[in-house]
Amino acid sequence: MLSFEDICAASNRISSIIHKTPVMTSSYIDSLCGMEVYFKCEHLQKTGSFKARGALNAVKIIINDSEKKSSSVITHSSGNFGQALAWAAKIHNIPCVVVVPNNAPISKLNAMKGYGANIVLCEPKDREMVCKNFRDNGEDIEMVDSHDDYRVMAGQGTIAIEFLEEIPHLDALLVAVGGGGLCSGIAVAAKKIKPDIKVYCVEPEGKNLQRSIDSNKRLWDPNADPVKTIADGIRVLRIGEKCFPSIYEKCEKKVLTVNDDEIAEALKLVYNRMKQVIEPTGAVSLAALFKYKNELAAQNLKKIGVIFCGGNIDLERLSSFFSKE
Amino acid sequence: MLSFEDICAASNRISSIIHKTPVMTSSYIDSLCGMEVYFKCEHLQKTGSFKARGALNAVKIIINDSEKKSSSVITHSSGNFGQALAWAAKIHNIPCVVVVPNNAPISKLNAMKGYGANIVLCEPKDREMVCKNFRDNGEDIEMVDSHDDYRVMAGQGTIAIEFLEEIPHLDALLVAVGGGGLCSGIAVAAKKIKPDIKVYCVEPEGKNLQRSIDSNKRLWDPNADPVKTIADGIRVLRIGEKCFPSIYEKCEKKVLTVNDDEIAEALKLVYNRMKQVIEPTGAVSLAALFKYKNELAAQNLKKIGVIFCGGNIDLERLSSFFSKE
Repeated sequence: MLSFEDICAASNRISSIIHKTPVMTSSYIDSLCGMEVYFKCEHLQKTGSFKARGALNAVKIIINDSEKKSSSVITHSSGNFGQALAWAAKIHNIPCVVVVPNNAPISKLNAMKGYGANIVLCEPKDREMVCKNFRDNGEDIEMVDSHDDYRVMAGQGTIAIEFLEEIPHLDALLVAVGGGGLCSGIAVAAKKIKPDIKVYCVEPEGKNLQRSIDSNKRLWDPNADPVKTIADGIRVLRIGEKCFPSIYEKCEKKVLTVNDDEIAEALKLVYNRMKQVIEPTGAVSLAALFKYKNELAAQNLKKIGVIFCGGNIDLERLSSFFSKE
Repeated sequence: MLSFEDICAASNRISSIIHKTPVMTSSYIDSLCGMEVYFKCEHLQKTGSFKARGALNAVKIIINDSEKKSSSVITHSSGNFGQALAWAAKIHNIPCVVVVPNNAPISKLNAMKGYGANIVLCEPKDREMVCKNFRDNGEDIEMVDSHDDYRVMAGQGTIAIEFLEEIPHLDALLVAVGGGGLCSGIAVAAKKIKPDIKVYCVEPEGKNLQRSIDSNKRLWDPNADPVKTIADGIRVLRIGEKCFPSIYEKCEKKVLTVNDDEIAEALKLVYNRMKQVIEPTGAVSLAALFKYKNELAAQNLKKIGVIFCGGNIDLERLSSFFSKE
């Protein structure tokens, strides 16, 4: 399982390169919630999302491995992790291949190319297989998974170290969950630093994480479709098998669930009141805070940490989220 | 004329209430310009624009005037100044009337109402007359102009004090000019604090400020239409008569001019790279920096200050600025 020591080691590896992102507040949002809400601004992170942390940690581990001096990296991603890995590889002068499903947004594709990645397009359902073929074909190339990879999880956990260093008295953290890389890393670090903190998983409707948590088993059908949600960063249905045990052990057993309307409402508020460009996934935790604020208050949770996980959005798509008044 | 002492007095009056806004940087934009660019984030100011500074200074002066204990305030505005004055009046418990042209965006109207202002709708061309009638009808009500008002100009000038305190070695400031309240205040303060700094006026195409600067006369036709520009915060054609002398005396004689495409391009970059929600007017100075960077560099200007003057934008309108690739 992921350990706090892994996360501290990641922090030492990456902290001179990544941004120590600011923590913002909004007195308006505080007044709406009746709580103190702290926003960790990972949309201002290198490459526009927290994924830079995990990708950089993985690349640094790979190039420091004395047996793999001339390595290159590969991943499959339609979004932020592809950009992050391409960036981390570029600053270390190693080649990077990103296998991209052919339904990925052009803007993300261009960003990956901008960081010098070699792009391999494929059918969405074939992404894992195409990655595997690359490695089986004798290439000296190391797979880095976007979430189900201890090096990546450890990198993401460094957010909790920074966040609790700046705001030590947080009562709870609300974390949006897709594959679970962010949530597992944060939960392991936060519970070690402040054992009485509560870490809540927030999911988009249709993921049904509660059922898997209730039985401590990954009950999802491996062939089922991704979750249908505007939060495109967390469409992956299943939590990774390396991530799940940490989440089961460290997070609250009650899963918070939000729908697209609630996410869009929170997103709008962040643009209007905080003037921050975040992607829909970045508004998921805040949507949950609005929805569950009474339940959280009933447990005497007063200082809440929320993560703006990313800010990479097609500007042309923005209007569709804001068309309802 | 506006004095530096007025601005220092304003700073003492308002600094405990307004935000000391952060200064941001972007290594990507620095690399595009070949300069160090510093962004003063007034879109994160109370009410979402720098106008809060001037409005608050005016209200504080009015309520401290022992002969006008029970005063109320009035202005005409279709945008940020109406919100700012309504906010400043509200926190001092005095009534505020805003005369609003009936073509103003509903969102701005709602924001003013949210701060408790009494809204009087009128034909766009009648706004000044309606204000005047209010005062002539015996109401104990004080007019505060959105820009042509020494109390307001002094408040806006406090931006330069804060900016140069944080980044003392700025070589130049680029300031978008509408009525001139922001630019006159900033120019007076900045040239006093750092006499060798250069303050450039940036205008939208169609304003023709250069002609008035060249002759040191306000040459605009009082009955001419506002400037047609997406930068709706600086559509007012004429620089105010109280503002003009300071601008003439303190600013560079060369006016920088940008068109809508250049503004939209800069706006897009700020959203994509800096993840900040600014209104089109907030991108005007950056657009000028991109356009004139070689001329500025030729004068050995290396550290450039730019002001993100506001972030109040109808989200539904955003897509129209970003539709071109």
